[in-house]
Amino acid sequence: MTVCAQTTQGAHWLRKGGLVQASKRISGVVGADGDGWGLFFRARALAEAGHKITELTIGEHDIRTAAPILQAMHAAAMAGHTGYASIPGTDALRDTIAARVAQHTGVPTTRANVLVTPGGQSALFAAHHAVLDEGQRALFIDPYYATYPGTIRAVGGVPVPVAAAPEDGFQPRGADIAAAAPGARSLLINSPNNPTGAVYSAQTLAAIAQAVIAHDLWLISDEVYDTQVWQGAHISPRALPGMAARTLVVGSLSKSHAMTGSRLGWVVGPEEMIALMASLAIHTTYGVPGFIQDAGAFALRQGPEFEAEIAAPFARRRKIALDILQGQNVVRALPPQGAMYIMLDIRATGLSGEAFGTYLLDHHQIAVMPGESFGRAAAGHIRVALTVEDRSFAAAFETLVSVACKLAA
Amino acid sequence: MTVCAQTTQGAHWLRKGGLVQASKRISGVVGADGDGWGLFFRARALAEAGHKITELTIGEHDIRTAAPILQAMHAAAMAGHTGYASIPGTDALRDTIAARVAQHTGVPTTRANVLVTPGGQSALFAAHHAVLDEGQRALFIDPYYATYPGTIRAVGGVPVPVAAAPEDGFQPRGADIAAAAPGARSLLINSPNNPTGAVYSAQTLAAIAQAVIAHDLWLISDEVYDTQVWQGAHISPRALPGMAARTLVVGSLSKSHAMTGSRLGWVVGPEEMIALMASLAIHTTYGVPGFIQDAGAFALRQGPEFEAEIAAPFARRRKIALDILQGQNVVRALPPQGAMYIMLDIRATGLSGEAFGTYLLDHHQIAVMPGESFGRAAAGHIRVALTVEDRSFAAAFETLVSVACKLAA
Repeated sequence: MTVCAQTTQGAHWLRKGGLVQASKRISGVVGADGDGWGLFFRARALAEAGHKITELTIGEHDIRTAAPILQAMHAAAMAGHTGYASIPGTDALRDTIAARVAQHTGVPTTRANVLVTPGGQSALFAAHHAVLDEGQRALFIDPYYATYPGTIRAVGGVPVPVAAAPEDGFQPRGADIAAAAPGARSLLINSPNNPTGAVYSAQTLAAIAQAVIAHDLWLISDEVYDTQVWQGAHISPRALPGMAARTLVVGSLSKSHAMTGSRLGWVVGPEEMIALMASLAIHTTYGVPGFIQDAGAFALRQGPEFEAEIAAPFARRRKIALDILQGQNVVRALPPQGAMYIMLDIRATGLSGEAFGTYLLDHHQIAVMPGESFGRAAAGHIRVALTVEDRSFAAAFETLVSVACKLAA
Repeated sequence: MTVCAQTTQGAHWLRKGGLVQASKRISGVVGADGDGWGLFFRARALAEAGHKITELTIGEHDIRTAAPILQAMHAAAMAGHTGYASIPGTDALRDTIAARVAQHTGVPTTRANVLVTPGGQSALFAAHHAVLDEGQRALFIDPYYATYPGTIRAVGGVPVPVAAAPEDGFQPRGADIAAAAPGARSLLINSPNNPTGAVYSAQTLAAIAQAVIAHDLWLISDEVYDTQVWQGAHISPRALPGMAARTLVVGSLSKSHAMTGSRLGWVVGPEEMIALMASLAIHTTYGVPGFIQDAGAFALRQGPEFEAEIAAPFARRRKIALDILQGQNVVRALPPQGAMYIMLDIRATGLSGEAFGTYLLDHHQIAVMPGESFGRAAAGHIRVALTVEDRSFAAAFETLVSVACKLAA
C-alpha cells in the first residue's frame, strides 16, 4: 500500500507550447522549502524495490481497521445506505460526535455544531477555507504536521510559523503568538502534538486563548490525537472561557480507531459557522459515504476501552524507546506526552536531521522523518513513529541510538 | 435518507457579540439568487412529516448500489485495504479509468492523466481550484447544475453564465462563449446536460473548442452522464484537435453505476496538471478510501452491459413522458438526448417554474425542480427527474400535464 503522491517539489507551472497555466494558488501549494517527504518517498521506493526497510515514518498503525467496524459498514451498505447521504453528516453520527465532545469537554454541543468531513485533512482544509480570505495571514506552530502550510496556501492564505522551542518542551509561548498576531485571521494548534509529542498544558492553552481573544483570531484546534495521552491530560481549548464562539475543533477517527483509510473526520464549531461550512461542503465534497458514517458511529459507540486498546501499542513502544535512551547522552528526547511519535534531538552527532536520516536509511535500512520536514524549529531532530511491532521497533531503535553514539564519538 | 444540507440562503455572516467573521469566500458561496433548493427542501420536509410525495427532484436512482459491488468493497476492506491509500488513486483504479477513457475517446491516456477524487463534485471543485486565482472570471453554460456558480465562488472565482437558449435546443453558441471569454480563465460545460438533456453536437463542440483555444481558456468538461445517451452520441471534447492539453474531464461512478453514495469520481487531464492536483489533494482530501477504489475498479470491470442496465429505466421513462406529451400543446419539451431528466417548458400556463412547482407540490403532492433553480435561461421551465418506478412516474407525469392544461385554459 503506497501512501502519498509523489509531489512536484516547489513546482511552478511552466508555460510551454500553448499550454494554459495552472492557478498560482495550486502551483504554490508546495512551498520553496519542499514538502518534506523526500526521505519518505526514497524509503518507499527502496521497499518497493525489494529492500527490507524498517519504516518509522508516518502515523499509520501496524494493525488494520477492526473487523466488527468493517462488518457494520457492510451491513449498512447492504441495508441500502448507498445513496447520497445528508451533506453535513447523518443525524446519528453528528449526534454521536456531539455527545462525545460534550462529555469530554463539558461544552454544550449538538449536531448543529458538527460538520462531518471525509477525513481530518479535509476538516483542516474546510476550517481554513471558512476563515481565510485571499492574502490573509494564518498562524501555525512550528514544528508542525507537514500539510499545515500547504493547507493554508491552498485557500490563498499566507502561512506564518510561530516557533515553539525544544527548551520549552515545544510548548508555544503566548507572547510569541501575540507578536505574530497583528493582521492575522487564525491560529492553528495541535495538541497532543505531531511531531513533538507535546500535550499543551493548562497554562499554555490559557496563554493561547488570551492571545487569540486579544487579537480577534479564529483558533483552529487539531485534536486528532486526543485519545493518545501518556502524561498530563488533554484539554480542548474550546472549553476555555470565551473560546467556543471562535474555535473550530478538527477531529478524526483515523488515529483513535485505526480507521485512517476510511477518511472520516469532523469540524466542531459555532452553529452559524457550521451552517456556512455545510453550504461550502455542497460545493467541495457533497458529503461523506453514508455507510462509512454508519461504521464511524458504530466505532464511536465502542467506547473508551476500545480506544485505549488502539492506543496501547504506542504507550508500550514509547516506554521501550525511553528505556533504550537511558544510559547515554548523545540522543536526547523529551518523553512524548502524547501521540504516536518520539522526537529525538540528534544535534550531538553534528548532523542535520536530514543527513542523519539519510545515513540511517542508507546504512541501516531504517527510515525516519527528518525534523526539518516539520519546520525550522525541529532542525537537528528526527521524528520516529511508534508504528512497528515491539520487537522490530526495539531492534531498530537500539540501532538508531548506537549509530548516533558512533557518529558523535 | 436525506440528501442535502439546508443551506443559509445568500448568507452573509453578521458580526455580533465579539464573534469573529467567516471568510468572504465562504459567506458568498450561495449567491444572491439563493441556491435553488427551496422547493426541494419543502418537499423533503413534507415527506418527513408523513405526507406521500412523489419526488421527481434530484438525480438519485430508484435502485441501490448493486450487491456484488458492495461485496467487492467488503472483501477489499476485510483483506486489509483499510490504511491510507495512494493519494492520487490506486494504480489499479487509475489504470482502469485511463483504459476506459482511451477506449471511449481514442485519446492516449495513462494513469498519470488520472486523479481519483471523493466524488464528481470534488472533481469539479479541484478542477476549478487548479485553474482559477482569486477574482478571475470562469464561464459556465446556463441552464446549469445547481452547484456550478457556488463551486466557482468557493475557489474565489467570478462565475459568468453564458446562456444556451431553448430555441437552440440548449446547445450553446461559440459566438456567445467568445463574447464572454475576454479576461476569463475557464469554461465549464456539461454534456449530456443536466438539467436540459441536451447532448452537444459535433458542431457545438467544435465551436466550443475554437473559442476555448482562441481565448486560451481551460475547458472543464463535466461528463458524468456519459453512459446515458438516448439520441446522437457522446463526444468528449478532450478528443478534439489541440484540446487534450487544455481540458480537464470530470467523471464519476455516481450516475453510471448507481454509486452516488460511494463518492467516487475523477479528473482526467494533462499529466503535469494532474501531478499538481495530486499535491493539492494532499492538502484537501488526503485521498479516497482504498476499499471504495477497489469497489470502483470492480464496478468498471462489469463493462458496458452493466452500464446499459443501470441506464435502461431512464430510457423507458423518457419514452413514457414523451408519449404522454403527445396530443396536447401546452407543455412543450425537447426530447432529452441524454441524462436522467426531462425539461418541460410550461410558459403557456402563464406561471413561472417556481410558481408551477409550488402549485404542483401543494395541490398534487408532486415535487419537481423549478427551471429557475438552474439559471435564468431555464425560467418558465421545470425539470422532472426520471427517478421513480415506471407506473408511479406515469401517473405523476399524467397529473402534471393535465394540471398544466387546466392552468393554461
